[in-house]
Amino acid sequence: MNTRTYLDNAATTPLDPEVFAAMLPYFQRKHGNASSLHEEGRQARKAVEDARRLIAEALSWDPEGIVFTSGATEADNLAIFGLARSRPDRRHIICSAIEHHAILHPCDWLEQQGYRITRIPVDTTGRVNPQSIADAIDDQTLLVSIMAGNNELGILEPIREIGELCRARSVLFHTDAVQAFGRVDLPTESTDLISLSAHKLHGPKGVGALAARPGMRLVPLVHGGGHERGVRSGTENVHGIVGFASACRLMVERRETLVERLSGFRKQLIDGVLRIPGTRLNGDRSGSLPHIANFSFAAIEGESLVMKLDERGIAASTGSACSSPNLEPSHVLQAIGVPIEMAHGSLRLSMGQQTTQADIDTLLRTLPGVVEDLRSISPFKLGDS
Amino acid sequence: MNTRTYLDNAATTPLDPEVFAAMLPYFQRKHGNASSLHEEGRQARKAVEDARRLIAEALSWDPEGIVFTSGATEADNLAIFGLARSRPDRRHIICSAIEHHAILHPCDWLEQQGYRITRIPVDTTGRVNPQSIADAIDDQTLLVSIMAGNNELGILEPIREIGELCRARSVLFHTDAVQAFGRVDLPTESTDLISLSAHKLHGPKGVGALAARPGMRLVPLVHGGGHERGVRSGTENVHGIVGFASACRLMVERRETLVERLSGFRKQLIDGVLRIPGTRLNGDRSGSLPHIANFSFAAIEGESLVMKLDERGIAASTGSACSSPNLEPSHVLQAIGVPIEMAHGSLRLSMGQQTTQADIDTLLRTLPGVVEDLRSISPFKLGDS
Repeated sequence: MNTRTYLDNAATTPLDPEVFAAMLPYFQRKHGNASSLHEEGRQARKAVEDARRLIAEALSWDPEGIVFTSGATEADNLAIFGLARSRPDRRHIICSAIEHHAILHPCDWLEQQGYRITRIPVDTTGRVNPQSIADAIDDQTLLVSIMAGNNELGILEPIREIGELCRARSVLFHTDAVQAFGRVDLPTESTDLISLSAHKLHGPKGVGALAARPGMRLVPLVHGGGHERGVRSGTENVHGIVGFASACRLMVERRETLVERLSGFRKQLIDGVLRIPGTRLNGDRSGSLPHIANFSFAAIEGESLVMKLDERGIAASTGSACSSPNLEPSHVLQAIGVPIEMAHGSLRLSMGQQTTQADIDTLLRTLPGVVEDLRSISPFKLGDS
Repeated sequence: MNTRTYLDNAATTPLDPEVFAAMLPYFQRKHGNASSLHEEGRQARKAVEDARRLIAEALSWDPEGIVFTSGATEADNLAIFGLARSRPDRRHIICSAIEHHAILHPCDWLEQQGYRITRIPVDTTGRVNPQSIADAIDDQTLLVSIMAGNNELGILEPIREIGELCRARSVLFHTDAVQAFGRVDLPTESTDLISLSAHKLHGPKGVGALAARPGMRLVPLVHGGGHERGVRSGTENVHGIVGFASACRLMVERRETLVERLSGFRKQLIDGVLRIPGTRLNGDRSGSLPHIANFSFAAIEGESLVMKLDERGIAASTGSACSSPNLEPSHVLQAIGVPIEMAHGSLRLSMGQQTTQADIDTLLRTLPGVVEDLRSISPFKLGDS
C-alpha cells in the first residue's frame, strides 16, 4: 500500500495523523453527548464550540453562522432548500453549468416544483462570466450559487466579483468552497453562504459545514432536537467536528508552503502530460486551484486509463468520484466544449499535502506508456477526433 | 474521569474499544472514497457493502434496503419526509404522543403544510393501545410511526401488533428502534421502515441507518452524487459505517448476557430508588428496555438533581439529552400524566455494557442524600404535590 501513488485527493484526502490525534480522546474517555448537562456533556459541548470558533476564525466568519452538517453535499442542499423553503416568494435560482451535483440536483428538484433555474454557461476554460450572472438576475432571484474552485478542472471562478454584484442587487450569494477553502483566499465578506467538507482537507469523512450569515433564516432539512440553533438536528458528531476544526487549522497554517509546492508540481504535471501526443489540458494553466489538473486524451477511454494506472500503483480518476459509477461523460467537460470522444478520455490528477516529487515522477514516467498501450488496442485512431 | 459513574447511556454510549479497533484502518491507510474506481476506492466500497450486509443480517433485513445516514434523526426525517414527498396523495400520518422529536417535529412541519397528524395518547405507563391506532387509520393514512422502546421511559411498545394491523390495512409502519435494537427482539417481518443509530450501541457518533423495504420509493432529503441508490447523496462516512456494523455485531453477540445483567441492575435501581420517600417510577417494572429507568421526585427540580449527582461523580439526565437545553417538562412525562411539579423532578438512569455493580451501588448510596439535601432547600414541601 505504502508504495502506491495517490493522486485522487479531490475525491478524498488521507486523514492527517495530527488531525487523528486531535480526534482520539473523543473516541475514548471524552465520549459525552454535547447536549447533556453533566461533565461528559459539557466537555463535548466545549469541544464542539471550540471547533466552531476555530473554523469561523479560519474563514473570517461569525461562529454563530457555522452550522455543522454531515458533509458538503448536505451543506449545499441546506443552502438551496433551506433558503428556498424560507423565502417561497422568490422562485428563481442561478447557478453555473459546472456546479457539483449537490447543487445541480437540488436545483433540478426545485425546477420540477415550478422554480426557474438559470444555469450559466462557462467559457472553454470553465470560467463563468460575471456579466452573464448580472444579466440573469431579476426581481424573483433568490440565490446565486457559484463554486469557488471547480472539483474536476481546478478552475477558479470570479466569486469576488460575483459576490459583489449579487450584494449590489440584493441577491444572496452561495459558494461551494469544498476544494478552494484552505488553498486560496475566499472573499468571505461578499459571500452569504459557504459549503465546506472536512475530508477534502485531510480531515475525517462524515462532517462538513454550511457557513451562513448569522440570523439568516434557513428551513432545516432535518428537524428534531433543535441542535445547531434549530437549523440541523441530530446528536453532534463530536469527534468528526473536532477533526474538521483541526484539519482547517492545519490547512491555514500550512497553506503558503503547501500551495507553493503543489503549484510547482501542477506545472510539472501539465508540462509533462502535454508532451504526450493527442492530449489537452482541461481548465487553464493559471487561475486554478494548485492541486487539481485535468487532461483529455484522444482515442482512449478514461475508465481504462484509470484502471491501467491503478494496476501500476497510481490512484487517479476520470472526474468527480461522486459520479464515477455513471459512464456518461462529465457534465463539466461537456460544458467547456470538450469533444465528446475526448471527454470520454479524461484524467483528473489531484494532489494532497502528502504528495511528493517521487509521486509526480512516477506518474510522468508511467502515463506515456499506459496511454500508448491503450491507444494500440483502441478502435479509434489518434487524429480521428 | 475513570472513577466516574456514567448512567446516561440513553444519551450516548462510550465507544467500544473493539469497534474502535475495527474503524482504525479506515483512519489510516484505508482512506479511499467508496465511489472511486481504483484500489483505495474499491477497498472503501467493500467496507461499506460488508457493513451493510452485517447490519442487514443483525436486523434480518435485505441489505438493499439499508440506507446509511448521519444518524437516527436524519433516518427518522427521511422516513417521514421521504415517504410524504413520494406519496403526496396520502396526507395523514399517525404517531404516538411520546415519539422522539425527530418524528414529532417533521410531523409538526407537515401539519403546517396541511397534513393531518394524529398523535395517539399513551396510558400511564407510556404504552400505546393498538386499538387506538386501528381506529385512527383511514383511507388517507400514509404511515404509522411508533417507536419500539421509549428513550425516556424505557417502555416497550406493542409494535408487533401495531405492525400487523398496519399491514392488514395496507398502511406503512415505521419504528424508531434506536434504543430497542440489540436489546430486544424486533418484529422486522411486520415493519416497513426502521431507524437505527450507531452511537446508542457503543458505536461512533455521526452515523445511523434507515432500513426500508427494498424498492420502496423515498424522495431524498439530500440530493447529489446519487450515493445509497440515490436515496442519500454524500461521500460515505466509511469509518463511521464500519464502526456502526461492528457495534451491531457485538450487540447481537453479547445481547443475551448483557440483557440479563442490565435487567438485574434495573431491578436493583427501581427497588433502591423507590425506597426514597416521595418517589415514583415513570414507565413500568416489566415490558421495558433493560437499560433505562425513569423516576420522579416530589419537591425537587431535575436539573438540580443532575447537577448535584454530577458533582458527586455520577452522570445522569432528566430525560432526553436532545432537549436538555430546554427547561420545559418533557412531553413524554406530560403524556403519561406525571403531575407537572413532579415532571420537573425527573431522573433518567440508563446503563451500558460497561456498567458495573459498583456503578449501581454508587448511585444507590449517593442518591438518597442528594435528594434529601435538595429537598431541605426546596421552596416546596414534600407532600405538596
